[in-house]
Amino acid sequence: SLAFDSKKHPHRRYNPLLDEWVLVSPQRANRPWQGQTEKTAPEELPAYDSGCYLCPGNLRANGEINPDYKGVYLFDNDFGSLLSDKVNFPENNSDFFSMKPERGINRVICFSDNHSLTLPEMEKHDIKKVVDVWQQQYEALGAEDFISHVQIFENKGQVMGCSNPHPHGQIWAQSSIPSAVARTQENMKAYFEKNGTSLLEDYLEKELNTGERIVLENESFAALVPFWAVWPYETMIISKRKLTNILSFSEDEKYLFAEIIKDLTTKYDNLFEISFPYSAGIHQSPTDGLEHPEWHFHMHFYPPLLRSAEVKKFMVGYEMLAEAQRDITPEQSAEILKNLSTVHYKSKN
Amino acid sequence: SLAFDSKKHPHRRYNPLLDEWVLVSPQRANRPWQGQTEKTAPEELPAYDSGCYLCPGNLRANGEINPDYKGVYLFDNDFGSLLSDKVNFPENNSDFFSMKPERGINRVICFSDNHSLTLPEMEKHDIKKVVDVWQQQYEALGAEDFISHVQIFENKGQVMGCSNPHPHGQIWAQSSIPSAVARTQENMKAYFEKNGTSLLEDYLEKELNTGERIVLENESFAALVPFWAVWPYETMIISKRKLTNILSFSEDEKYLFAEIIKDLTTKYDNLFEISFPYSAGIHQSPTDGLEHPEWHFHMHFYPPLLRSAEVKKFMVGYEMLAEAQRDITPEQSAEILKNLSTVHYKSKN
Ligand SMILES: O=P(O)(O)O[C@H]1O[C@H](CO)[C@@H](O)[C@H](O)[C@H]1O
Ligand SMILES: O=P(O)(O)O[C@H]1O[C@H](CO)[C@@H](O)[C@H](O)[C@H]1O
Repeated sequence: SLAFDSKKHPHRRYNPLLDEWVLVSPQRANRPWQGQTEKTAPEELPAYDSGCYLCPGNLRANGEINPDYKGVYLFDNDFGSLLSDKVNFPENNSDFFSMKPERGINRVICFSDNHSLTLPEMEKHDIKKVVDVWQQQYEALGAEDFISHVQIFENKGQVMGCSNPHPHGQIWAQSSIPSAVARTQENMKAYFEKNGTSLLEDYLEKELNTGERIVLENESFAALVPFWAVWPYETMIISKRKLTNILSFSEDEKYLFAEIIKDLTTKYDNLFEISFPYSAGIHQSPTDGLEHPEWHFHMHFYPPLLRSAEVKKFMVGYEMLAEAQRDITPEQSAEILKNLSTVHYKSKN
Repeated sequence: SLAFDSKKHPHRRYNPLLDEWVLVSPQRANRPWQGQTEKTAPEELPAYDSGCYLCPGNLRANGEINPDYKGVYLFDNDFGSLLSDKVNFPENNSDFFSMKPERGINRVICFSDNHSLTLPEMEKHDIKKVVDVWQQQYEALGAEDFISHVQIFENKGQVMGCSNPHPHGQIWAQSSIPSAVARTQENMKAYFEKNGTSLLEDYLEKELNTGERIVLENESFAALVPFWAVWPYETMIISKRKLTNILSFSEDEKYLFAEIIKDLTTKYDNLFEISFPYSAGIHQSPTDGLEHPEWHFHMHFYPPLLRSAEVKKFMVGYEMLAEAQRDITPEQSAEILKNLSTVHYKSKN
């Protein structure tokens, strides 16, 4: 029988953050594609769009008018998934019909007043202002009695369900710790209790040693394709210092975080020379009032595209029912991302 | 403070099969949608398409020619995610770099020679022939030494990554038990060990008593919207008898399973009067040679559409990072599906 070669043979890899496996099929990368292709967004947008409900001075769906803001602008989501109202609820502990009210606050953050920009096209010091607001919001929302978790994220691109190209992200703060975060925390905790160090601290050290999957690095952060990545060009930004959450970021660290976000998303845009879609978000310690020495700040990027601007990876049938599956290996993706420039393709013209 | 009303207030529900929660936001159902809309497939397809690699007599990508088959046709996937080759692999037990070779067999099942059909448009006795092949394949593949799990599924519609409208499904058989199945099994096992009955047997009994989420029922099967459903019109078919897998289906049960599949997918098509996309698949006991009294045969349907033929639910940012989220409640979805006819909208013309 043959000697195993991870570049040729189907295999499974273990994700220690979620305690689950991913199926990797390197031999499948060149199957022909006759399926759905994605529309790509128009390349040039105006700096101001009178029909956009996020642009300065415009009317929102709920009848409010945006101020004539500059830079970052924050407001409560007009159609939030959560409400802050307190509701009474009789305890119920059924095996099959367990439900409980959930309270929370949903906010929208415009990253810039300029409708035509995206994170990779913004200046580093302007991205730093977004990071400042993330830090303030984590603190302010987390300080609320009824908020135990603050989820900061961005959906970018139509294919990721984003309904407006104006650069913006969201914050969903809520009273419970959501399922995927709870699972991550459980695994980080077990590791921390066993080893006295953080899982991602030790993992990052090993990744920096081999260098194989490192895409970018600065003094305070590294961006890499995780060994267990599910999406074709999935990456993770990890803080080099073991920071449990964004509250402990210094001014310098906030700037360096902004820098690595700019560089990573620029590489993404350069990959297919389009505004690269993704969902991205921060995982950090919950705000439930407990100590969380097991946590280690990181940010996930989940981009859907696989082969080109038009062909995405579908996480469907097998993936929904059984297990995540990928074709191109994480090492191949890292190699490709590593070799891309951090100068944005548009700025070269 | 207000009294909790599950039709009005955000809440979380518990999924005992996966031991995780879903966020339900009933108040969010009427937010305006300005985002991506899906292309709908052309309504009328020819019974034979010379460009289709699944039609009888046509050439496939690997150079083989399909026989001039009638009814169901089965073949090995030309671009499988798994290979059956045995490979040598040195044991490795790293905390962070765990991988192991995975062997398997991928098959494609054409449900019919007729390019223009889909399950809801097929005759019950022709769907029964598909069920026969599922049973045979579960047996034959499961009998292989190196196969511990047989995943039977269908991706239907372009939006679900299906690259060919010719009615077909897939089987991915492999040496490991995939992550989502392993998690389901763990929870079923814990329940079985505690109660001596199957989780789904007891759940179904309660659902049949209330009737609220039951969409369809025949002598041997029920189709319902699970209390913890994630997708807007997600359903599950559960066998009334506690069958661990498809091997124990009698001829009658196979026919009744075909019948409920036809009726359920017909309701789906009638919902927006289009060929309704979904990923569907069977969860049943693994073929790892062990006894699995905890298992209870069921089939999941995960349809992506939310408001119309064009607007789907995006499981993105918050959902990928934190927790599944839905707008319309499972009870509302069940009510809508319940009231739809089991006569296909096309056959009315
Ligand atoms: O095998 P197909 O139909 O070409 O491919 C489709 O189903 C597979 C199994 O769910 C997925 O891995 C692919 O991403 C999807 O495009
Ligand atoms: O809030 P938005 O951007 O309108 O909506 C988008 O992001 C949300 C959070 O990930 C998802 O629940 C929605 O399905 C998606 O369309």
